Amino acid sequence: MSFAELLTQGQVERVHEGSLEILEEVGLMVRYAPARDLFRVHGCAVDSETNRVKFPRAVVEKYIKVLPPKFTFHARDPKYDKTIPDDSPVIVTGSSAPDILDPVTGVERRAVIADIVHIAHLIQELPAYDMFSVSVLADDAPANQFTLARLYPAMKYCSKPIRITSKDLPDARDILQLAYLVAGSEEAYREHPFITHHYCPVVSPLTMDHLSTEAVMFFAEQGLPVYPTIVPNAGLTSPMSLLGTLAQGNAEFLAAACLMQMVREGTQLIYATLPTVADMRTGAYASGGIECGMLHMAHAQMAHFYNVPYGGYIGLTNSKINDAQSGYETGLSTMAGLLAGMDMMNMGGLVEALKTFDFAKAVIDDEVAQMLKRMKRGLEFSEENLAVEVIKKIGPGGSFIVEPHTIKRMKTAGLLTKLSDRDTRSQWTKKGAQDIHARAMVKVREILAKPSSTLFSEEVEERIRAHFTDLITAEMEVPEGLQIVSS
Amino acid sequence: MSFAELLTQGQVERVHEGSLEILEEVGLMVRYAPARDLFRVHGCAVDSETNRVKFPRAVVEKYIKVLPPKFTFHARDPKYDKTIPDDSPVIVTGSSAPDILDPVTGVERRAVIADIVHIAHLIQELPAYDMFSVSVLADDAPANQFTLARLYPAMKYCSKPIRITSKDLPDARDILQLAYLVAGSEEAYREHPFITHHYCPVVSPLTMDHLSTEAVMFFAEQGLPVYPTIVPNAGLTSPMSLLGTLAQGNAEFLAAACLMQMVREGTQLIYATLPTVADMRTGAYASGGIECGMLHMAHAQMAHFYNVPYGGYIGLTNSKINDAQSGYETGLSTMAGLLAGMDMMNMGGLVEALKTFDFAKAVIDDEVAQMLKRMKRGLEFSEENLAVEVIKKIGPGGSFIVEPHTIKRMKTAGLLTKLSDRDTRSQWTKKGAQDIHARAMVKVREILAKPSSTLFSEEVEERIRAHFTDLITAEMEVPEGLQIVSS
Repeated sequence: MSFAELLTQGQVERVHEGSLEILEEVGLMVRYAPARDLFRVHGCAVDSETNRVKFPRAVVEKYIKVLPPKFTFHARDPKYDKTIPDDSPVIVTGSSAPDILDPVTGVERRAVIADIVHIAHLIQELPAYDMFSVSVLADDAPANQFTLARLYPAMKYCSKPIRITSKDLPDARDILQLAYLVAGSEEAYREHPFITHHYCPVVSPLTMDHLSTEAVMFFAEQGLPVYPTIVPNAGLTSPMSLLGTLAQGNAEFLAAACLMQMVREGTQLIYATLPTVADMRTGAYASGGIECGMLHMAHAQMAHFYNVPYGGYIGLTNSKINDAQSGYETGLSTMAGLLAGMDMMNMGGLVEALKTFDFAKAVIDDEVAQMLKRMKRGLEFSEENLAVEVIKKIGPGGSFIVEPHTIKRMKTAGLLTKLSDRDTRSQWTKKGAQDIHARAMVKVREILAKPSSTLFSEEVEERIRAHFTDLITAEMEVPEGLQIVSS
Repeated sequence: MSFAELLTQGQVERVHEGSLEILEEVGLMVRYAPARDLFRVHGCAVDSETNRVKFPRAVVEKYIKVLPPKFTFHARDPKYDKTIPDDSPVIVTGSSAPDILDPVTGVERRAVIADIVHIAHLIQELPAYDMFSVSVLADDAPANQFTLARLYPAMKYCSKPIRITSKDLPDARDILQLAYLVAGSEEAYREHPFITHHYCPVVSPLTMDHLSTEAVMFFAEQGLPVYPTIVPNAGLTSPMSLLGTLAQGNAEFLAAACLMQMVREGTQLIYATLPTVADMRTGAYASGGIECGMLHMAHAQMAHFYNVPYGGYIGLTNSKINDAQSGYETGLSTMAGLLAGMDMMNMGGLVEALKTFDFAKAVIDDEVAQMLKRMKRGLEFSEENLAVEVIKKIGPGGSFIVEPHTIKRMKTAGLLTKLSDRDTRSQWTKKGAQDIHARAMVKVREILAKPSSTLFSEEVEERIRAHFTDLITAEMEVPEGLQIVSS
């Protein structure tokens, strides 16, 4: 596939030059002192009064050259390991939503640990998801287990790669400790680090914060998988033009990329973004707007220019429910992202932008992701698929239905969708005239009724509880209202 | 924008070669005798027993070279004239659905003349539609006015370009007569022919029918705008491989294109398609499948290879209602088509594949089309939009909200969507928690309450009725259930 491009090569180079100019003349305010020190050591000009770090062109150019072209997501079960861009597109859940649509009542409420148990099991079972970025926060997490209370159920019920963030360094150390216990030892974990760490160290415009910057540096030092996402919002935290937002966001990515390479040259990373344009009538966060897809396409071009893997949060919707708006917002921007060459898409399960998880949306997005992956497979060029001899044999007015060429391909040429309804109206009406939200909830019930295949062994559980003596339990208990209704 | 491509240039050439081989060795069965005669005169080999027409390579290559690179859609009101590819994407309604979801009851029924009045007025008022391809049939059309009963209300209530088909030659002549009366004279009409004629003369595999082939030849002879659509269905009427369906569909297009150029060299045409892959579990017509979008992308590459405008029916859904399936099926394939360089999209207003028109879907698709057009506008590259000086001025931690650069662009940089909801959940709930279908129906009521701005003058009406003495009337009468509810 050759990718759709909104910019010419010359325009990409001009954006790059603009970003270099911004980094050289204005730079970033860096709030975390060890980051400032590192920048200084590696040739940046640091003003210790204003905490401003300026990047000479030569410094940025040096580190751009060493950015690794690949990023690997390891999984607890290695059969789920993925490397981008080789395995693109890697499909990931949207993450860290504070709220959830209660799967029994449909009413919005805070998400809790029990939800993560259900969601992790669901993502394990849905085929298009390649990675589980823990979808929600846990409002009932004990104070000392802010992240553990999310990570433990996520890992227990999902053996695909897990992506998670943390709030501070002690929290990050707890994550690692839990990972070592699951893997058997620190050495075993480091050989195959099945958690990917994620942060937003840059607060637009052009500011590096304390805690996330610290975390990115920590994991990069450790040689463990970590990457940053850049999140400008045009009109508020970046210019009210897609191009200006691109230039600034690109400068912010380059600053974070330099930092990671200064920590440890050759550290794998992803050029990851969530760029949006504010709806200036109300200031609304319009991540469902088509401009979000356009900005992703443009950033993908910059990432290709630097030869680094590219991804981000895409397919978000501003709708509150699974209506047609939710469908077209997700469909339009994810297809734009795919055809622009995105390697990773955080696209599953959220409504109301990043605020609310919905079980049915996660199932629907799995179907959308299957369609995206079918697109990526392309036309499968071969002389046999070109079928000139078959066409000549069947000839005018004939039928292809019983041809061996047809029978051989009838289960593979077209994606046999499970959730998308293709019945006639009368068939559909006889089956209950369900919309796709209702059908998705049937699928949720079916999956939740299946036993988990990913639980930790007794030995691992004991090891974990010996270390984290007060760790939350996370048993699978499907509430009555979510169980399969027998007819 | 540079387009996404699923095939390499070498693969495009191989498909072209495969199509030439099919045309040369197997050819088409041509049921309409004057078409066979014309093919014979222009160098094809015609078997008069089997009605098989074979196309020597040199014949096809000769006519490929003379295909015009543009196609113009004229409108009754010339300000709506569009030429592709200059004005791409031209957005058009899906057409000729037999059924409609009754806008008051929501129940499916046969479509009637009164529906066309409402639909034509709606399409006139919805900004993203560039052309009205008459969306439904008219079940209550008098026997002698099969097409007149659709065309008269369509033209009366919509002054954008009109696209229509006909059932036979007398019907086609009636269309022209009505057009002459509206224009004032045959000469006036021919100077600015505001109806575009459309047919599917090729029945896959590789067969030209009688009536549609006759109609295409008739309008091409007259020098009036006409184009054919190619509609293979993989697994049934073409091979069960996307590539084989492409090779056959491309051969079918080339045959129709040769015919039109043989009628009159330099006749404008569109490479237009609706290629699908049958769902072989049930034989269902899966026009909502992602493969439909993929085949359009591949045909777009072939059209670019021949340097002819490209379009087709895309964004169709197999859903029966405006749910998330309807949204993502429309969103995914229209974005794929746009980024592959489609010049024209018949994409508006239908559910259940091509079977049923829905008013709310037409409004929703207008919003989708606005997003596609925003994408086509791209990043609007300029130094001012790159905004390096603005970014330097605002600096780390600043806000862009009150910058003149921002204020100048706040109404144009992002599409200010009218139908897509961006409220918070609490705002949305206060406003009634409507899904987008309900909001679209509010918009339908608002538009239907507006007076038409396109009615014929009294003089034109008198001229029409003097000729067609028993022509249906088509008064705008909004049923009570569709009127705006005052609060």
